[in-house]
Amino acid sequence: MNPKITIKSDSLLRHVVLFKFKNDTPPKKIKEIEEAFYNLPSKIPQISSYEWGLNNSPENLNKGFTHCFFLTFKSEADRAIYLPHPDHKAFGSLLTPYLDDVLVIDYWIN
Amino acid sequence: MNPKITIKSDSLLRHVVLFKFKNDTPPKKIKEIEEAFYNLPSKIPQISSYEWGLNNSPENLNKGFTHCFFLTFKSEADRAIYLPHPDHKAFGSLLTPYLDDVLVIDYWIN
Repeated sequence: MNPKITIKSDSLLRHVVLFKFKNDTPPKKIKEIEEAFYNLPSKIPQISSYEWGLNNSPENLNKGFTHCFFLTFKSEADRAIYLPHPDHKAFGSLLTPYLDDVLVIDYWIN
Repeated sequence: MNPKITIKSDSLLRHVVLFKFKNDTPPKKIKEIEEAFYNLPSKIPQISSYEWGLNNSPENLNKGFTHCFFLTFKSEADRAIYLPHPDHKAFGSLLTPYLDDVLVIDYWIN
């Protein structure tokens, strides 16, 4: 086993993804991208759970990010399958032309 | 009722907080801040659930943020109590001198 691959049987690996779209992205295209991300868990069984929503923080500390997607994996091995997965890559190709900025942070729940 | 206050009985309000500490922050101080945040749910009952962890994403899209705190509220009214809460403010006073950057994004689960 790759020594860099960690499994913690008593924890979960969170994968937090934030998007900021280019100003001129058509709302119809944003909707299409939201739906394409929503459909990934049905195509990639390594995604253990999935949720998303639109920023509504009153603190104005979101740095322009409007979309938060919150995925869970059970292991780093599952994440390592997800990241280069062809369906994930196809989603990236749909998304990239309209993306102004992206932020990703992952963590094991302490 | 304030018309801006939304309650969705079938959803949860997520509150995602990312920290980047100044480079010269002593590890002991970072530990103290982690513990102070961890103690907030016992002081502020409006926090419905709480988890946190340290970035381990291999994608290098975390923009220097190392810490992710993931809180849940059941309503925007509960969040409105949390944000100016004296114990939250005291935590902010402990944190601020060591903070290089912060990002906050909130969302109702769709």
